[in-house]
Amino acid sequence: MERSQIAGKLLSKINSPDDLKKLDTFELIRLSEELRQYIIDVVCEHPGHFGASLGVVELSVALHYVFNTPYDQIVWDVGHQAYGHKILTGRRDKFHTNRKLNGITGFPNRFESVYDAFGVGHSSTSISAALGLAVASRVKKEKQRQVVAVIGDGSLTGGLAFEGLNNAGVEKSNLLVIVNDNDMAIDPNVGAFKEYLVDIATSHTYNRLKDDVWKILGKLNRFGPNTQALIQKIDNGVKSILMKQGNFFESMKFRYFGPVDGHDVVYLTKVLDDLKKIPGPKVLHIKTIKGKGFKQAEMDQTTWHAPGLFDKETGEIIKGTSDKAIPPRFQDVFGHTILELAKENDKIVGITPAMPTGCSLNIMMEAMPERTFDVGIAEQHAVTFSAGMAAQGLIPFCNIYSSFMQRAYDQVIHDVALQKLNVVFCLDRGGIVGADGPTHHGAYDLVYMRSIPNMIVAAPMDELELRNMMFTAQQNDMGPFSIRYPRGRGVITDWKKPFDKIEIGKSRTIRDGKDIAVLTIGNTGLFVKEIENRLIEQDINYCHVDMRFVKPLDEEKLHAICGEFSQIITVEDGTIVGGFGSSVLEFISENAYQTKLKRLGIPDAFVEQGTPEQLHALCGYGPEGIYSTVMNLMATIKKQKKVKVNVKH
Amino acid sequence: MERSQIAGKLLSKINSPDDLKKLDTFELIRLSEELRQYIIDVVCEHPGHFGASLGVVELSVALHYVFNTPYDQIVWDVGHQAYGHKILTGRRDKFHTNRKLNGITGFPNRFESVYDAFGVGHSSTSISAALGLAVASRVKKEKQRQVVAVIGDGSLTGGLAFEGLNNAGVEKSNLLVIVNDNDMAIDPNVGAFKEYLVDIATSHTYNRLKDDVWKILGKLNRFGPNTQALIQKIDNGVKSILMKQGNFFESMKFRYFGPVDGHDVVYLTKVLDDLKKIPGPKVLHIKTIKGKGFKQAEMDQTTWHAPGLFDKETGEIIKGTSDKAIPPRFQDVFGHTILELAKENDKIVGITPAMPTGCSLNIMMEAMPERTFDVGIAEQHAVTFSAGMAAQGLIPFCNIYSSFMQRAYDQVIHDVALQKLNVVFCLDRGGIVGADGPTHHGAYDLVYMRSIPNMIVAAPMDELELRNMMFTAQQNDMGPFSIRYPRGRGVITDWKKPFDKIEIGKSRTIRDGKDIAVLTIGNTGLFVKEIENRLIEQDINYCHVDMRFVKPLDEEKLHAICGEFSQIITVEDGTIVGGFGSSVLEFISENAYQTKLKRLGIPDAFVEQGTPEQLHALCGYGPEGIYSTVMNLMATIKKQKKVKVNVKH
Repeated sequence: MERSQIAGKLLSKINSPDDLKKLDTFELIRLSEELRQYIIDVVCEHPGHFGASLGVVELSVALHYVFNTPYDQIVWDVGHQAYGHKILTGRRDKFHTNRKLNGITGFPNRFESVYDAFGVGHSSTSISAALGLAVASRVKKEKQRQVVAVIGDGSLTGGLAFEGLNNAGVEKSNLLVIVNDNDMAIDPNVGAFKEYLVDIATSHTYNRLKDDVWKILGKLNRFGPNTQALIQKIDNGVKSILMKQGNFFESMKFRYFGPVDGHDVVYLTKVLDDLKKIPGPKVLHIKTIKGKGFKQAEMDQTTWHAPGLFDKETGEIIKGTSDKAIPPRFQDVFGHTILELAKENDKIVGITPAMPTGCSLNIMMEAMPERTFDVGIAEQHAVTFSAGMAAQGLIPFCNIYSSFMQRAYDQVIHDVALQKLNVVFCLDRGGIVGADGPTHHGAYDLVYMRSIPNMIVAAPMDELELRNMMFTAQQNDMGPFSIRYPRGRGVITDWKKPFDKIEIGKSRTIRDGKDIAVLTIGNTGLFVKEIENRLIEQDINYCHVDMRFVKPLDEEKLHAICGEFSQIITVEDGTIVGGFGSSVLEFISENAYQTKLKRLGIPDAFVEQGTPEQLHALCGYGPEGIYSTVMNLMATIKKQKKVKVNVKH
Repeated sequence: MERSQIAGKLLSKINSPDDLKKLDTFELIRLSEELRQYIIDVVCEHPGHFGASLGVVELSVALHYVFNTPYDQIVWDVGHQAYGHKILTGRRDKFHTNRKLNGITGFPNRFESVYDAFGVGHSSTSISAALGLAVASRVKKEKQRQVVAVIGDGSLTGGLAFEGLNNAGVEKSNLLVIVNDNDMAIDPNVGAFKEYLVDIATSHTYNRLKDDVWKILGKLNRFGPNTQALIQKIDNGVKSILMKQGNFFESMKFRYFGPVDGHDVVYLTKVLDDLKKIPGPKVLHIKTIKGKGFKQAEMDQTTWHAPGLFDKETGEIIKGTSDKAIPPRFQDVFGHTILELAKENDKIVGITPAMPTGCSLNIMMEAMPERTFDVGIAEQHAVTFSAGMAAQGLIPFCNIYSSFMQRAYDQVIHDVALQKLNVVFCLDRGGIVGADGPTHHGAYDLVYMRSIPNMIVAAPMDELELRNMMFTAQQNDMGPFSIRYPRGRGVITDWKKPFDKIEIGKSRTIRDGKDIAVLTIGNTGLFVKEIENRLIEQDINYCHVDMRFVKPLDEEKLHAICGEFSQIITVEDGTIVGGFGSSVLEFISENAYQTKLKRLGIPDAFVEQGTPEQLHALCGYGPEGIYSTVMNLMATIKKQKKVKVNVKH
């Protein structure tokens, strides 16, 4: 541990919530300061999510102070904000390994700690999961257990959260939902519900109003008995409105409390202690500031959601210094290209579920706000909304991360593909994503997309191909068109080239050869390029085809390949269970070729966190993995040829 | 057309909404009667969904009377209720072909009519789709277009509907959402929101209350100026509450109107006409009775959701008459078996998203209400809620139709499989479902489940195997376990046998043979049994293995098969793109066998409606399809053998 990452005097003694409970309530203020500082000290040098955890420092302290964790259970929604929770529950000294290979994970994780009651990563799961925990306690007759879900206002826009509220309201379990209202997702939160939270949290708040009305009613008492009877009637009416229908959460049959200041740790402990005694489902609405206590993070909350390395003194974010032009991120190629296309084609609209910055749709959003839609954390809606627009002849580009698109699988099938609507799905973060780990790897999209009829499934190898695929996809009557590309940067600095139309289902031969054929999809083609010289040095005359489309497959090319080669290797940045390689196997089988196929890709297991390079290597389909596979198979081929030659002699 | 299905005097002249508009408002009452009678007359002889359409007869008439369809667009949620709409929009004389092969479809369908603005089948999509249509109109500057979503209170519990509301509230499009509140899904609706709708629709209604409060406030005027000032303050406070937060829909930034009687067609036309003039998002809450106008259907709404053939005079549902004992429906085997298991194992709980009758979990629900959960139309929540319960050591059996499980794909991966939790997924309606058509066929589950790490993917061939798989799955530490079975009946009348544990990943050899191997998964094994005698008569000595598990595969058996047979056939009631057959291909490839494989199953296309037998035949994997495939392949094998023999000579 470096000197700059030594925990403060109080924090250094907290090895579990038991230690926390020994503190005096007012010491929690200082502890919160130390916890906040420790997060800053570590995250500035060991990058991770930042603003969210700073915003719930006081809440994390108060929860573990008041509740009997781990018997009482806390479910953090998404989990970006759980660093304080991790540090307080025995992971302080490991915290610098956060998000690294074999280190602690960036999200709560049941395999990591008994204090992590439920694993998270994706949004809006906490209420449902916490209700499951609470109802299970009831079924098991463990009546003392308290269960708390902590959910941000951004996560509340996800339909799953609503489904959870709707069920929890009638289950009458001891469930406390804490709404951490900071008015942000990663980008600023959007939607009617966010405005509603602003309504009840500003001067016309529900509580203020309730108080006001009651105060006024109190004063009316001096008007004599007739008036009083009348007042009673008003009173009942108002109360009935207030209690029954006066509040979104109360219409969901929750008792609503708040809003309260989420940075007043002493007051929070009191409120939580009171709420422990109230049975049934209840909501505590707290107001917090994302990035609280670090000026720059408070000022620019989107940038400081996950800033990377930074100087904690100056607040400067440290970028890799380089005089050389570096290739763009794939997401920025998407962002600039959709704007270029939209300028020429007025049918194009852009849709993102709460990821305008993450997917770079913010570029179009600034230039064409009326044709760009951030629909909030709502992947299902993003897809069906896109389908509706396509049904009127528009061409929506719906950008969703690969692992989040899992949320909208049914909508892709039922609302888009079945109706053969022209929605272009841009799947960012396809394949291994790195430090975010197994919840976020985009491992399944090639499988789940290719099994859908009518779907075109494409993956560009580089920036130019991404541009040209987008250009191709914008045309009428293509039907659903899926383009997936990875997190991170490409390889071409000079990428703003004129558009070329790509023939659907047509591959591109990168290198001709006679010994062995390597078929790649998407960015894995770059891995083969990386080992080009090494293979040539070894005298391997390999053929490399960038397939570009998983569906439709380039059958003409495949016939040629299968006719010529005895051994093929497929490489994909996705699961090999039913993926691109399997689609080639299906072709080989249907056409009764004898060609052998080795499939490289993500094996049938959840892949942990690490750098993409580390993880590609672990899975055996990084440059080195491909190289050794080619060399091994070539050795076998040569041996077989030798045998054949010997037989002939 | 039979005599009993002749439309009434007014209805017989309605060939499009233009004809409807020629009627006098009060003639709509009689037209509604005729429309209701026509639905009864046709559906009693040509079975389909019943109660839902009867409930919206007046709404259907009023909508097409008031709105300028098809330019104005109506999106029906789910679509069970759209028969009246279909009959009024040019499909009266084809209505008797409803749900039959090549007939009109049971749901709105864009390929069928311009009046069907958006295809449906699954629940809760209408608001998102209608918003897409409305926003597209805005983008295209077609300002006159009105868009209406009709959604039931049951569908409103789906998270997608909430996501749609949340986005629509801030999009300020001319969107009218009609909440068709009949307090029912297929089974009675459940959840907090349903109770809320009851609240505002009964005596303490929002509108009544508003009126009451205003009336009282009016009377207070006689108390002089001081009081009046005070009153003004109360007034503002109350108004503010009422307008801003007094109603769930208004908290979503919709203007709320209602509730009104959905069976008063004249009043409905007036209200809809008024609402046309009010810009922005608005909700009309109507109260209707599911099954309205057919006594038995009003009394037992679940049974009459889709009653099959019935006698319209006596209200008797016509069952197939047979003295022989008939085999049970797979769903009933599930229903009885889970109760048997739950009696012995107190960790078992049952979960269904709004399908207790559809999946027969109602059997357990009646016996063990405290351990059985209908969570409403909320597949995502059903899975994450199950995961929460499993995280506390319970063993939830979560029953969801295959095509609806697509809604919860992310939750299966992220909340269950990644955490290796013991949730048993029972996927009813796996494979071709028949008359419900392409929205409801369970074509993808074998693919999307097998690509998930940690998942056991099983499919029973018959009732006994279903029982034994459930028995096997209930044990601790199995991790996620998926069991899929088809709609309809099995083959074994004497199915209540003692339980046998099945070894995970172990197949069952139905018939040994030497010529060709047929590997089946699930119910397709029964198709092979059906042609057993014909094959034997043809002297085909085939081997038939019921694989039972797609994952893990029985590798020991497959090694034996691949070592012995030159030709394998796989048969699955699911897509062949990445499915069971492909998993066998992957095995063959990984183990470098030369065995040839022919995969039978659903091809890469959406399969239309028809009887399961018709559709299996169309897809080529019904008994006849398997028979001819075997015969063709055997002919080839024999020819090859002959060639080999000749070469030897």
